[in-house]
Amino acid sequence: MTAANVVVREVGLRDGLQMVQRFFPTPAKLAWIAAELAAGVGHIEVCSFVPPKNIPQFADAFEVAEAAVRLPGLQASALVPNLKGAERAIAAGIRELHFVLSASEEHNLRNVRRTTQQSLDEFRAVVALAHGQEKKVAVSGAVATALGCTIAGPVDPGRVMAIARMLVEAGADELSLADTVGYANPAQVRALFERAESELGGTVPIAAHFHDTRGLGLANVYAAVEAGIRIFDASLAGLGGCPYAPGASGNIVTEDLVFLLESMGLRTGIDLGRLVEVRRIVAENLPDEAMYGQIAKAGPPKGFLARAA
Amino acid sequence: MTAANVVVREVGLRDGLQMVQRFFPTPAKLAWIAAELAAGVGHIEVCSFVPPKNIPQFADAFEVAEAAVRLPGLQASALVPNLKGAERAIAAGIRELHFVLSASEEHNLRNVRRTTQQSLDEFRAVVALAHGQEKKVAVSGAVATALGCTIAGPVDPGRVMAIARMLVEAGADELSLADTVGYANPAQVRALFERAESELGGTVPIAAHFHDTRGLGLANVYAAVEAGIRIFDASLAGLGGCPYAPGASGNIVTEDLVFLLESMGLRTGIDLGRLVEVRRIVAENLPDEAMYGQIAKAGPPKGFLARAA
Repeated sequence: MTAANVVVREVGLRDGLQMVQRFFPTPAKLAWIAAELAAGVGHIEVCSFVPPKNIPQFADAFEVAEAAVRLPGLQASALVPNLKGAERAIAAGIRELHFVLSASEEHNLRNVRRTTQQSLDEFRAVVALAHGQEKKVAVSGAVATALGCTIAGPVDPGRVMAIARMLVEAGADELSLADTVGYANPAQVRALFERAESELGGTVPIAAHFHDTRGLGLANVYAAVEAGIRIFDASLAGLGGCPYAPGASGNIVTEDLVFLLESMGLRTGIDLGRLVEVRRIVAENLPDEAMYGQIAKAGPPKGFLARAA
Repeated sequence: MTAANVVVREVGLRDGLQMVQRFFPTPAKLAWIAAELAAGVGHIEVCSFVPPKNIPQFADAFEVAEAAVRLPGLQASALVPNLKGAERAIAAGIRELHFVLSASEEHNLRNVRRTTQQSLDEFRAVVALAHGQEKKVAVSGAVATALGCTIAGPVDPGRVMAIARMLVEAGADELSLADTVGYANPAQVRALFERAESELGGTVPIAAHFHDTRGLGLANVYAAVEAGIRIFDASLAGLGGCPYAPGASGNIVTEDLVFLLESMGLRTGIDLGRLVEVRRIVAENLPDEAMYGQIAKAGPPKGFLARAA
């Protein structure tokens, strides 16, 4: 098998589950993580260290993280909303923190009750903590609503780039640009990510985080691939939905993303057949939740699996 | 309003309905056509002149065509499988015929019980008839399974181009390349359509026909746009499904296609809000049929409709 040259990062256990009311049992979360790892998904965002009173789904974050970091071969990351979350994540053994702030001031205020500037200060504190560990912990800085905002509407790319640059200058080990609410179109994606690659790509790896709320998620992935991006977030079965659009899908679907990338000749290192089987764990534990994804219904094209192997 | 610079062609009444068992009443078909025209969809493939014993859904093809061609401002086309179908379409007043043959010999034999060569001969006869009318009738030549085949698997692009060239040399007024079974990926689409534009784009307009069976339909549209394509087929609500993949979607969704194109700054001349309302006619007449499409669920991004107007 050829070495992987593109990273598919599973975020269903974080971005997917944070929308889900029904508690996903801890052993089932760990089974999900283990099954995806066995299918070849080497990087999983396993939980969020938000206060459990805000999102009860993550009441078991510490337990999940502690177990996940012990799985051989897994790069387990976690979302941290603030310094306190970062402390808990590091105590659980997490070696990669994901910190999110919004390019849209309005969205940031509503999301974390801070101005973007205050979030940047918090980010600096998280980086200081993480990089000050005996063995350095990595921090990814993500710019949410980088391609549009449900409150503010369009978001100025100049502002997105200014914030991205501040994150990198503050010590981010990775930059992630997120279409948090599924507003982006491929032409816009290509322009923003080409600019990011050109201005900051030499200093840190750049990841893309797309939602499929309006059906353009995979078109946006293709545009980002064309811009040189090789790290993509996705959620198994597109779990999560959108709080602002009932019935609409959430994150792009991991299985469909793998199919897209592999079909274009990129190598994810993921076994698509085995990945599709992991959906069963989600279905069993969330019987009322909508599950998205075309490849699970249609199967890959004739000859595809043989060529991918 | 800016003049349209990209054509969205509704094929739901043909490619969509041909999969549907329940008869869509003739007045409802005409209401659908009129409503889409009112929303700004200027080109609609209104029916198929296949023998009604093969597809009873098209038993009213003559009546639908006769009424559609009388609608001011509508470019009404029809699918014709053979010379006899072309005669009926022309008698009904249709001024644009769509003829389909498969790049995959196996698919062509199963689909129309002819070799590709025999289909090419039939195409020549259709062109002779159409171009011999007092007022010339246009003929579009479509290459089905141009990006893969459920029976043969991968299809050689060299063979696709050879057949495309034969269609053009035989007098096609337009060339259409179709991913009939939803096998294509964007890199493949871009390569094939760039080659088609380069080798044949100077002689005829080139259209793209994509299915969303495996979720890559709109990514493929973006790739084709990048290759210079400006004519796209789509089906309202993604009507149709795929006979080989139960539960999988069919044609790309017209509403989502319009959103993709408009969001990238292309102009379709279509009012997205009014287009979405037309779904009601489909829903009322096909209560058991799955309806696809993200924009109908999520609505356009904040500020989108104001910018598009």
